[in-house]
Amino acid sequence: MVTVGIIGFGYWGPNLVRNFVESGCAHVKWVSDLRAERLAIAGRRYPDIRTTTDHRELINDPGIDAIAIATPVFTHFELASEVLAAGKHVLVEKPMAATSEEAIRLIEQAQRSRRVLMVDHTFVYTSAVRKMQELIQGGQLGQVYYYDSVRINLGLFQHDVNVIWDLAVHDLSILNYILPGSPAAVSATGVSHIPGETENIAYLTLFFEDNLIAHIHVNWLAPVKIRRTLVGGSRKMIVYDDLEGSEKLRVYDKGISLSDKPENLYQMRVNYRAGDMWAPQLDNTEALRVEVREFIESIEAGRHPLTGGEAGLRVVQVLEAATKSMRDRGRLVELGARGVTA
Amino acid sequence: MVTVGIIGFGYWGPNLVRNFVESGCAHVKWVSDLRAERLAIAGRRYPDIRTTTDHRELINDPGIDAIAIATPVFTHFELASEVLAAGKHVLVEKPMAATSEEAIRLIEQAQRSRRVLMVDHTFVYTSAVRKMQELIQGGQLGQVYYYDSVRINLGLFQHDVNVIWDLAVHDLSILNYILPGSPAAVSATGVSHIPGETENIAYLTLFFEDNLIAHIHVNWLAPVKIRRTLVGGSRKMIVYDDLEGSEKLRVYDKGISLSDKPENLYQMRVNYRAGDMWAPQLDNTEALRVEVREFIESIEAGRHPLTGGEAGLRVVQVLEAATKSMRDRGRLVELGARGVTA
Amino acid sequence: MVTVGIIGFGYWGPNLVRNFVESGCAHVKWVSDLRAERLAIAGRRYPDIRTTTDHRELINDPGIDAIAIATPVFTHFELASEVLAAGKHVLVEKPMAATSEEAIRLIEQAQRSRRVLMVDHTFVYTSAVRKMQELIQGGQLGQVYYYDSVRINLGLFQHDVNVIWDLAVHDLSILNYILPGSPAAVSATGVSHIPGETENIAYLTLFFEDNLIAHIHVNWLAPVKIRRTLVGGSRKMIVYDDLEGSEKLRVYDKGISLSDKPENLYQMRVNYRAGDMWAPQLDNTEALRVEVREFIESIEAGRHPLTGGEAGLRVVQVLEAATKSMRDRGRLVELGARGVTA
Amino acid sequence: MVTVGIIGFGYWGPNLVRNFVESGCAHVKWVSDLRAERLAIAGRRYPDIRTTTDHRELINDPGIDAIAIATPVFTHFELASEVLAAGKHVLVEKPMAATSEEAIRLIEQAQRSRRVLMVDHTFVYTSAVRKMQELIQGGQLGQVYYYDSVRINLGLFQHDVNVIWDLAVHDLSILNYILPGSPAAVSATGVSHIPGETENIAYLTLFFEDNLIAHIHVNWLAPVKIRRTLVGGSRKMIVYDDLEGSEKLRVYDKGISLSDKPENLYQMRVNYRAGDMWAPQLDNTEALRVEVREFIESIEAGRHPLTGGEAGLRVVQVLEAATKSMRDRGRLVELGARGVTA
Repeated sequence: MVTVGIIGFGYWGPNLVRNFVESGCAHVKWVSDLRAERLAIAGRRYPDIRTTTDHRELINDPGIDAIAIATPVFTHFELASEVLAAGKHVLVEKPMAATSEEAIRLIEQAQRSRRVLMVDHTFVYTSAVRKMQELIQGGQLGQVYYYDSVRINLGLFQHDVNVIWDLAVHDLSILNYILPGSPAAVSATGVSHIPGETENIAYLTLFFEDNLIAHIHVNWLAPVKIRRTLVGGSRKMIVYDDLEGSEKLRVYDKGISLSDKPENLYQMRVNYRAGDMWAPQLDNTEALRVEVREFIESIEAGRHPLTGGEAGLRVVQVLEAATKSMRDRGRLVELGARGVTA
Repeated sequence: MVTVGIIGFGYWGPNLVRNFVESGCAHVKWVSDLRAERLAIAGRRYPDIRTTTDHRELINDPGIDAIAIATPVFTHFELASEVLAAGKHVLVEKPMAATSEEAIRLIEQAQRSRRVLMVDHTFVYTSAVRKMQELIQGGQLGQVYYYDSVRINLGLFQHDVNVIWDLAVHDLSILNYILPGSPAAVSATGVSHIPGETENIAYLTLFFEDNLIAHIHVNWLAPVKIRRTLVGGSRKMIVYDDLEGSEKLRVYDKGISLSDKPENLYQMRVNYRAGDMWAPQLDNTEALRVEVREFIESIEAGRHPLTGGEAGLRVVQVLEAATKSMRDRGRLVELGARGVTA
Repeated sequence: MVTVGIIGFGYWGPNLVRNFVESGCAHVKWVSDLRAERLAIAGRRYPDIRTTTDHRELINDPGIDAIAIATPVFTHFELASEVLAAGKHVLVEKPMAATSEEAIRLIEQAQRSRRVLMVDHTFVYTSAVRKMQELIQGGQLGQVYYYDSVRINLGLFQHDVNVIWDLAVHDLSILNYILPGSPAAVSATGVSHIPGETENIAYLTLFFEDNLIAHIHVNWLAPVKIRRTLVGGSRKMIVYDDLEGSEKLRVYDKGISLSDKPENLYQMRVNYRAGDMWAPQLDNTEALRVEVREFIESIEAGRHPLTGGEAGLRVVQVLEAATKSMRDRGRLVELGARGVTA
Repeated sequence: MVTVGIIGFGYWGPNLVRNFVESGCAHVKWVSDLRAERLAIAGRRYPDIRTTTDHRELINDPGIDAIAIATPVFTHFELASEVLAAGKHVLVEKPMAATSEEAIRLIEQAQRSRRVLMVDHTFVYTSAVRKMQELIQGGQLGQVYYYDSVRINLGLFQHDVNVIWDLAVHDLSILNYILPGSPAAVSATGVSHIPGETENIAYLTLFFEDNLIAHIHVNWLAPVKIRRTLVGGSRKMIVYDDLEGSEKLRVYDKGISLSDKPENLYQMRVNYRAGDMWAPQLDNTEALRVEVREFIESIEAGRHPLTGGEAGLRVVQVLEAATKSMRDRGRLVELGARGVTA
């Protein structure tokens, strides 16, 4: 039984608390938040959990083994660094940090202190994304041609980060998990429609090896909510609609093949193949439940978690590069092995 | 009654013939195609129409007033030029020409010969696009923030043009019609997944004045067919789904407003507004019927058609610029007043 | 501030407790359930609420003003009767009782004891149903022609009642609220596919005055979940899809009109009219929140609630008649003013 | 090569002519219709086909082998009888005749004259219905529990028949094809909302052996078009949506199983099973093309067609019984082996 504390009880914190409480493998001792009214809610809901406006009470409590951080992005580095310095394990909300420089320093600090550093890439723990990874890694899709994701809705505008850091981060964490390679370069476009605020609409193109291309459309100002991803492969194609109740994942036995010798100019070299569609039954365990278990097990086994600091860093690197490209209206930004070069 | 001939009886030609025949204001005298088997089909369907494999029979026939061209893009310039040289009016399939240079020469030739030069931008003649134009020009949408279109399906791969010239051309012709201004620059990305063929997936971002941004996703290799366009404005937003039987257009009374004085850092300056949705009843006359009428009326009145050579040129300019940008992985290509500068 | 107790903490009880707690106008003192493990859950979630396996502790507590009953149908009458006998107000889960005889006795008992007797017809408190009622009563639909509802899914099979009592009860409570009149007769069909269990699929036709017809399809054994209701009127028609996130209600300006003098036999007397569709923005307050407020306000004002005993009785009468008709394979069962005659 | 004539060139006739012409195995010599303007259309479209307002020209032409009848229902018997009397084969539009008496007489006449009598049950020739039949007959669905169909839209009101004869006829022909047995009894309800016209909304319940139940909802006055059928079996369930472009058929690996010994009253005996969904790729040949081929092949081989007179009779018997039940507000009407008993 690992004893944990949670810093931040805003939008996501309550989900973390609930999942740790109900996981059966963790004991939640503390919740901190700067706002007394948020703590009042936590207190009514969980009378046994201590609350405080000073997160240092958690960090200084020797009875706490691990801390989860669910605060604004610009605070992640400082808080996670304090947690690791106090010899505790840490689970950081995505994106891991505000810069790749910060992310690298956290990774190094966790290595030195031999503590678990995990990033809350929630989608990696959904059964839909896991099934996609399985289908891709198992070769069922053949060569992967493209990943195309639309993640749009009305609101919530963020203050401290643009729409890429808020929404595209999900797709980047999914890509990092389901594809074997990393993007080599990114071209992004986007604008702000509200004077004085960050970009609320953006489009990212990521270039991988072998003509694999990924595209992400994120938008805080859309009249309808869409969460739909297409993955095209040479053997099969996937449509993943996260708003579907069941049948989130549809696998199409569709594609093309090439004729070697078309008889004339008008005849196509490309032949179409259309077969059955198949929607695998998916486990509906809450993703955060699976994730919380991964965090606790990594601590207990002293091993690297599935979404550790390196995964968090790679995502932050692309976020940085995409923002840079977007502010330069699509100029290609190359992504090095570790860190960004342009 | 205008007497017309049609060059090209492949995929689109039969639709032109049928609409001219049933329009009641045109007489179809000739159909030409290089393939005898296509002419056989035309002959069985319309025993009164003459057929030939030599398009010059149409051009040289003094009984013909106007010719519609529905052949591959690379032939448009030469054929249209011959038609105009013979003193006849011409309707050219989209895109108007293979280069903006060719488009400019056709415009000049039509001016000199005082003949109607019209481009077949079919979507401009649909009731859905006309209603969008009406809503935008009438101010109901407020300031237009973005246009976002997804136009994807499986096939048909084209030989002589990439997917931008085949599919994005529709959105560019729509944009040219519904928005008052023209794009100032374009950044595009895309790749080919089939060795030796042109790009089959592409993403275009167009930059207009006042932070208006347009994005177009075109793909020949998608498992599902999607034809969906979002138009976001400061007062209302539109979802246009061309595959919907009825209710193709949905107008959402949704948006945001700004608080002048948020009380604290956590409070948003942005407020959301959600109201009714409204789907206007649309006339379901076939677009090509309306277009054919516009062509005939322009000839009879000696006036410029709604989608004349200038509209065709602007679309070709963006297609050229987008292809250039795509081959340079997103590099911004500026669009001058007439012609492309990079 | 009214002090309440809840009997039954199974599927629905927790929703009642949560809504009373968060209503701000009620204090929840007790929860009872026969199962200790359910009480343990209630205790962890609400440490301040007392729990017991003996519902008489609630009934005998003079500190309790009102009791909500969320137990199996066959227990409703006895429990509600005990509550009223103890001089407390009562909110009974739907359907109100297992027979109309029981329902009538509860109404009489509540009248004598001058206590509020309310039935938990939750759908009446949704904004979608309220908007439908408003449109019908306001005359926007014109003459109402039909109500057609499909309410199907996989599970949950009930032990003590058939699928009509479990699912059609929702539509009957909606009909009772949105239409001015009551059904005059019912014809129902249905079967059980599981030996020894009650009917799991059923179809009800209700006959009202003026050729108004209502039909309800309920099914516990469907591969997909559907909750869709059509209401046809002479001036407008409604499609109400309860599974839609937003736009649950769509109002179609569609219908027919009659030609007085068709010119010949082949010409139709019926003309079609198709106009705009409109989806009113709906308030998304939880229905049970509104209902709990209605219960408390009825108690405080000493008035009849919107869904009182009479509404509950009428619904039970139709349930009884429909079950009788179904067991006789569609034989028409007439519905008297109060009570059933066949 | 069989030479055919078509009587009736209204809504359906043109489809018959086109499919016979393009079948490659039939020669269309004559088309007749009472309306000169319909014949003018036929003449323009098919200059080689002779037209007449007098159907007897076809019947008396010794060069004609077979005649297809696409006229109003009340004329089917007389016309088909004349055709058979002239020694020609006949394809009759559905429903086969206005009464089962008439249907029986046509069957007997065809037997005596040794001519093919086929009924145009078009849906039987769609790939979706054939796949359903294959899945049911092959046992993949297990025991069939129910068939539930919704077939509604706005218009077209018929003069000579009610909505059951116009729309439910499709489901009855499908049921006759996909299920091994016939319905034993029917209970139907429905009303007319237009004074002086036939019923425009109706609900049919058909009772088969072994608790198999079929239900059909037909409606000419619905704001939206729906064509959706559910088939529930003990092993698998089907959703068939005829308006879907592709994926018309979805097969769900869902269902229930029974626990022998539930531990207590609260525990369900019924367990749920949810597995994958599968949408088989369907051939998209036009149904009428397949049907026309079946007619020609039956003539050439001198064999019974798939949808012969007996199939047509069984459908008419249920239509008669359902109308009788509907006019008696749901009263059960038993269906004998041949003919109706009540």
